[in-house]
Amino acid sequence: MKISCNQQILSKSLNTVSKAVSSRTTIPILKGILLEASSDGTLKLAASDLDLSIEKSIPVTVWEEGSIVVAAKLFIDIIRKLPNEEIEITEEEGRVTIKCLASEFTIVGQTADEFPSIGTIKEENSIRIEKELLKDMIKKTSFSASIEEAKGIIIGVLLEMDEEGMTMVALDGFRMAVTREKMESNDNIKIIIAARILNEINKIFSEEEASKEVDMIIDEKKAVFLIEGARIVLRIMEGEFVKYKDILPKEHQCKLKVNRSEMIDCLERASLLAKEGRNNLIKFSIIRDKIIITSRSEEGNVKEEIFVEKEGADLEIGFNAKYILDVMKFVSDEEVVMEFNTSVSPCLVKPIEGDGFEYLILPVRISTKTF
Amino acid sequence: MKISCNQQILSKSLNTVSKAVSSRTTIPILKGILLEASSDGTLKLAASDLDLSIEKSIPVTVWEEGSIVVAAKLFIDIIRKLPNEEIEITEEEGRVTIKCLASEFTIVGQTADEFPSIGTIKEENSIRIEKELLKDMIKKTSFSASIEEAKGIIIGVLLEMDEEGMTMVALDGFRMAVTREKMESNDNIKIIIAARILNEINKIFSEEEASKEVDMIIDEKKAVFLIEGARIVLRIMEGEFVKYKDILPKEHQCKLKVNRSEMIDCLERASLLAKEGRNNLIKFSIIRDKIIITSRSEEGNVKEEIFVEKEGADLEIGFNAKYILDVMKFVSDEEVVMEFNTSVSPCLVKPIEGDGFEYLILPVRISTKTF
Repeated sequence: MKISCNQQILSKSLNTVSKAVSSRTTIPILKGILLEASSDGTLKLAASDLDLSIEKSIPVTVWEEGSIVVAAKLFIDIIRKLPNEEIEITEEEGRVTIKCLASEFTIVGQTADEFPSIGTIKEENSIRIEKELLKDMIKKTSFSASIEEAKGIIIGVLLEMDEEGMTMVALDGFRMAVTREKMESNDNIKIIIAARILNEINKIFSEEEASKEVDMIIDEKKAVFLIEGARIVLRIMEGEFVKYKDILPKEHQCKLKVNRSEMIDCLERASLLAKEGRNNLIKFSIIRDKIIITSRSEEGNVKEEIFVEKEGADLEIGFNAKYILDVMKFVSDEEVVMEFNTSVSPCLVKPIEGDGFEYLILPVRISTKTF
Repeated sequence: MKISCNQQILSKSLNTVSKAVSSRTTIPILKGILLEASSDGTLKLAASDLDLSIEKSIPVTVWEEGSIVVAAKLFIDIIRKLPNEEIEITEEEGRVTIKCLASEFTIVGQTADEFPSIGTIKEENSIRIEKELLKDMIKKTSFSASIEEAKGIIIGVLLEMDEEGMTMVALDGFRMAVTREKMESNDNIKIIIAARILNEINKIFSEEEASKEVDMIIDEKKAVFLIEGARIVLRIMEGEFVKYKDILPKEHQCKLKVNRSEMIDCLERASLLAKEGRNNLIKFSIIRDKIIITSRSEEGNVKEEIFVEKEGADLEIGFNAKYILDVMKFVSDEEVVMEFNTSVSPCLVKPIEGDGFEYLILPVRISTKTF
């Protein structure tokens, strides 16, 4: 293999593909990036951790076809640190030479034979989605998924599509996030994708600033996103997702309209005394037209007050401050609605208007001893 | 004690004083910040790790005199997160209450009796120094000091002052940094201060943007810097510093004029294959009008070339790339001079003109096996 190409283009594309390089794998080939030069003047870059695979082809000058797998981290570091000039990459007997002006690197490659293939992708049934919308839904949902691999299906995000639009759902046993966007679609899709993977592709979406849209293709076992010449293949998780609609409360005893940034400030201060070892425990005392937030630890105690618009009954309820803070930070509305029933039933956070998101947060039982 | 003051002023001053709070101490009182309200309308903030003590007084409204020590991290976090409004701080029976708008914190304090005192400082014999100059000398020297506490005196930086000006020296057994600045002075000073402490006060100098000058007072056992109402007291290390002048080479066999940023780029690339386990070993082959930099590891090898202006003999010499990189990054000249003698004698890096800095870097013996 022998090619030459521009440093900037190669470096940027490597950055995209690198999102699929596994840091935790014990399979040496998965720590590598595939370089495949074809006679049509393209260099295909590919990486895969089996759950997520990314391929991107870039135009290069191909002097000699061929393919090789190079150690991802080292190769990316080398290309990144070279000047913005023409780079020549040559493979001979498993050794890869990289030349650029007066710099010359020789690194050991691995044969491309065992590199996992993405397989063929039928691009006919693709669904075009606005990129920012998809990014926003992922951002607002994925943080609520479980991060414990052992928890099975709930490390995933449910992605549903029907005639009304797209819904994403994630939960971890203590909280649940549901986001919805109206969208024209004839598709009926219901798939689960690991939240970790969605977060990785969100990074790619952010970096591909030029693209306004993403094409999505759903297959039996994989979901594919096409953006800026990159093919991103995600493994679909197998299993049944939690029946989330059954969990969403249908009524409430108390409804508040809350200023979001004020709530963030108060919770951040209250959290200073709500220690992790005690589940960041804070108490909401909803009395008349305000929430009194209190917390205490061996080091001291804190009291914060927020004025709110209220309908319904007074209530005392305990929470892990982190879960409420997460919600307030991931949404962007100036004001949100919080609905409560009893001190042992979940709180629902939703927009003032519409059903763009619904967050359910389980309370923490508070004993009279702790407060 | 009862005072009220503005949040921003208090927060900024706490930030300065916090540089002296020890993170590693087992003495509870040293994890605290002293608050001392006087009838003259000032609140004195103080912190000390015994090697470094900082005091700063700010104008406040004092309703009731008194003093208390509060847990530094918690108190600073609370003040930082409060809004920019008036804060009221009250101490009663060892409990400190902090009120600001609708926020109210109560934290546990410690009695101020055992807090270490800075003692009296005679401000008569102070030496006025340009702040940026002092900052720059510390920055360019302190990184060369040893970071191993067990190494004794060489964790310190030597600060010398005589009729010609100020000199700072630091070394760690592998390299040495000497910086000089001409300065009018009648003083004859020779003290050693821990590099760690100089780095902390450099942070304060950077944050006190308004001040152009610093007053320095040298006492038998302590050095004091006065800046923006803050009194910074540093313990002087006891012992004899290395006779650095004897180490500086008087002659050279080979002298190069090198472009600094080009050298940084080449060394950073070469370092990708010069692994830490092998002391970041790189080889300089100085041949005719260029340096060929090479390095190798199990993963591959690299060759870089830099054109230079040369006087003297050709040479092959090995280095820990990190030591050369550090020097090139801490100085700011466009070009520097590198002087060599043999492959086992140190390299001297100095400016094209003058003697503002001299860096000595010991070579690494290279076997024919490694290259």
